[in-house]
Amino acid sequence: MHAFDQFITLFTDTPFVLENGRSLSSVSVCYQTYGVLNSDKSNAILLCHALTGSAHAAFENESGEKGWWFDYIGPNKAIDTNRFFVICTNSLGSCYGTTGPDSINPDTQQKYGTDFPIITISDMVHLQFTLIQHFGIPSLFAVIGGSMGGMQALKWSLLYPNHVQHCVPIATTATVSPQVIAFDAVGRHAIVSDSNWEKGFYGSDSSPKEGLTVARMIGHITYLSNESMKSKFGRNLQKKDTYDYTFDVEFQIESYLKYQGDKFVSRFDPNTYLYLTKAISYFDLTHQNISLEQSFRDVSSRFLLISIKSDWLYPPQQMKEIVKALMRTNKNVSYIELNSDNGHDAFLMPNDQLSDTLNHFLENR
Amino acid sequence: MHAFDQFITLFTDTPFVLENGRSLSSVSVCYQTYGVLNSDKSNAILLCHALTGSAHAAFENESGEKGWWFDYIGPNKAIDTNRFFVICTNSLGSCYGTTGPDSINPDTQQKYGTDFPIITISDMVHLQFTLIQHFGIPSLFAVIGGSMGGMQALKWSLLYPNHVQHCVPIATTATVSPQVIAFDAVGRHAIVSDSNWEKGFYGSDSSPKEGLTVARMIGHITYLSNESMKSKFGRNLQKKDTYDYTFDVEFQIESYLKYQGDKFVSRFDPNTYLYLTKAISYFDLTHQNISLEQSFRDVSSRFLLISIKSDWLYPPQQMKEIVKALMRTNKNVSYIELNSDNGHDAFLMPNDQLSDTLNHFLENR
Repeated sequence: MHAFDQFITLFTDTPFVLENGRSLSSVSVCYQTYGVLNSDKSNAILLCHALTGSAHAAFENESGEKGWWFDYIGPNKAIDTNRFFVICTNSLGSCYGTTGPDSINPDTQQKYGTDFPIITISDMVHLQFTLIQHFGIPSLFAVIGGSMGGMQALKWSLLYPNHVQHCVPIATTATVSPQVIAFDAVGRHAIVSDSNWEKGFYGSDSSPKEGLTVARMIGHITYLSNESMKSKFGRNLQKKDTYDYTFDVEFQIESYLKYQGDKFVSRFDPNTYLYLTKAISYFDLTHQNISLEQSFRDVSSRFLLISIKSDWLYPPQQMKEIVKALMRTNKNVSYIELNSDNGHDAFLMPNDQLSDTLNHFLENR
Repeated sequence: MHAFDQFITLFTDTPFVLENGRSLSSVSVCYQTYGVLNSDKSNAILLCHALTGSAHAAFENESGEKGWWFDYIGPNKAIDTNRFFVICTNSLGSCYGTTGPDSINPDTQQKYGTDFPIITISDMVHLQFTLIQHFGIPSLFAVIGGSMGGMQALKWSLLYPNHVQHCVPIATTATVSPQVIAFDAVGRHAIVSDSNWEKGFYGSDSSPKEGLTVARMIGHITYLSNESMKSKFGRNLQKKDTYDYTFDVEFQIESYLKYQGDKFVSRFDPNTYLYLTKAISYFDLTHQNISLEQSFRDVSSRFLLISIKSDWLYPPQQMKEIVKALMRTNKNVSYIELNSDNGHDAFLMPNDQLSDTLNHFLENR
C-alpha cells in the first residue's frame, strides 16, 4: 500500500473568504487518504499536521519515505485503517501542494510571495470543511492533530460542532503563550532580515536560506526538552574530548541543530514559515476576553486531550486549562499526560502510551 | 560621586598565556572602583559582570547613566562603599575597554577581529588576578558575580583559593547545559551567517547587525520567565485590540524583543558576542569527568549561592548541585533562592531579598 498525494481545486466559482476579509479563488488542496470510506460515510477521521508537516501522514510513498505518523496509522495500528477512512490534508498556506505563498497566483501567473493574504487556523479549518463536504461526509468520526494540528482540531469542535463526533488535540494549547509568540517572532525576524528575502519576492536560487536555518534551529530547541537534550547530546563534542578553540561546530547539540537547519531549508519555503507561524501566534480561543468556558459552550464532540510531561512549548498546564473549561461546561472529556522525556517532539515519535490511548479511545466507540 | 573608567595595560613585558596555549601581549584592562582601599588592603570586593556588561557597575557616569548594579553598590547600600573598596573590571574579550576582538592588535595596528584567540572563563579570571596583584591586594574580601560573572566567581575560588575569602555566585551554573549551549550556538550562527560578517573582518559601517539583533532577541527570551512575559506583555497588541493581519511588529512582546535587539547593536560588537558566548559554552567545572566534589576539594572561600526561582537559563536545580558538592566536601556554604518571577534577569533588577541577603552576608564578617 503506497501513500500518494491527491489534489482537488475548490472555490473555482465562489471566492474563499478569509477571516481577515480578503479572499482566495481556485484553492488547491493536497490530501492523502488511507483506508476505505464506508457506505454511510461514518468512519472518516481527519488528521491535521503540525507546522512543517504535509499530507503524507501514513504508509510509505513511492520513494520509500514513511509518513509523519507512520507508526500510528495503518492496518491494526492505533488508528486502524481496516476500520477507519483517514484523510490528511496539507494545510492552507503550506508548501506541500495546498495553496500558499509558494503557489502560483492564478490572477498574475506569478508566485504569490507576500501578496498571499495572512491566514488563520480558522481559515485552515474552513478549507478542510469544504473538502469534507466535497466527500459528502456528513460528520467526521474524529478530528485529530498535534501542535498546530491540535489547534485545528480544537477549532473544528467550535466552528463545526455538529460535524465532529470526537476531537483529539495533542500537545497544543487554547491560547498561544507570549513565549511561543516570541520564539516565532524571532524566527520570522531572522527570515525577513536575511538580505535574500527581498520582501518575500525572492527567486528560487537565492531564497533567505540562512534566516530560515536560524528559525528552524530556534524551533528545534523548543521541540526538545532539557532532559532529552542532556541524555541525547549532553556536552559531548563532535570529534574528541578536548575543546578545539575555534568557532567551528564543536558540540554535538550544535551539530544536530545545524544539520536540522540545513536539512529543513532544502524542503521548506521561507515565506510559508512566516505565514504558518503568524497563524499560530494569532491562535487564541479567549481572544477579545471570551472565557474558555464561553468558547466551548456549544461544542458537542467527545474530547481526548493528550499532553506531554516534558513539553515546555505547550506545557501540560495549558492543556489542563482546556480540560477544566470543558469539565466546567459539562462536556465529555478525557485527559492523559504522556510520561515522556522527549519534549514537544514526543508525539511524532513511537510511543506505546500514545498509541494505546488513541486506540482505546477510537475503538471503544 | 561619578563613575569613570580607568585603564591599565598589563603584560607589556611577558606574554599573557591563555588556556588554549595562544598568548596576548599588552593587554588593556578597563575597570572602575568605588569606595576606598584600606591600609591593609583587606576590604576589596571584585565584581564580575554578565555577558553584555561593562566595568560601570555603580554610581552614575558623566552622562547620568547608572551602573548595572546601581541599586546594590554605594554608601549604605547592600555592598557598602563606606566599608568596601569595590573593583569591577570589563572582562577579557569584551568590547568596553578591555582587550577583545574589537581592540587594535598591537602587532598589526588593525582590529583583531577573528584573529583574536578564543578565550575562557579561566582566562578572564587570570587577567583579573593580575590586576589585583597590581593593586597589591593579598586577598579579596569577596568576589561576586551573576550569570557569566558567577562563573568567574566560581573559577576564582578554584584557581586562587588563598586569595578569595568570600565567593558569591548568582544565577549561574557549574556546568553550562546543552540547552544554553544550543541557544548560544544559534545566536552565533545568526551572526556568522549574516552576509556582513565577512569572517569577522567587517568594517564599522557594515557590521553584521541583523545577525546580532537576532542573537540578542533569542537571549532576551531566555532572560525572561514565562510568568514575567505573561504579566508584562501577555498577548497584548501594540496598537489596538484587533489583529492587523500583516507581518509588521504587532504583539507587545515582539516589539519589546525588537527594541532590545536594535538598542543592543548600537552598543555591542558582534565578534565580542561570539567570543563571550563561546567562553560560556566551554564553562564546565566537571570537564573531563572530574566530579564537582573533586573540583571543589581545595577551595577555602565561604560561599553564598543565590539562585532565582523562575530562572530557566540557570535554574535553581543547577545551583543546588553546587551547594550539595560544597556541603559534601565540608565547605562553608549558604544558599538562597530568590522568590522572584522575573526570570534570569531578576538579579539585575532591584530586589529587596537579594539586597538584604548580600548585605547580611558581607556585614556579618
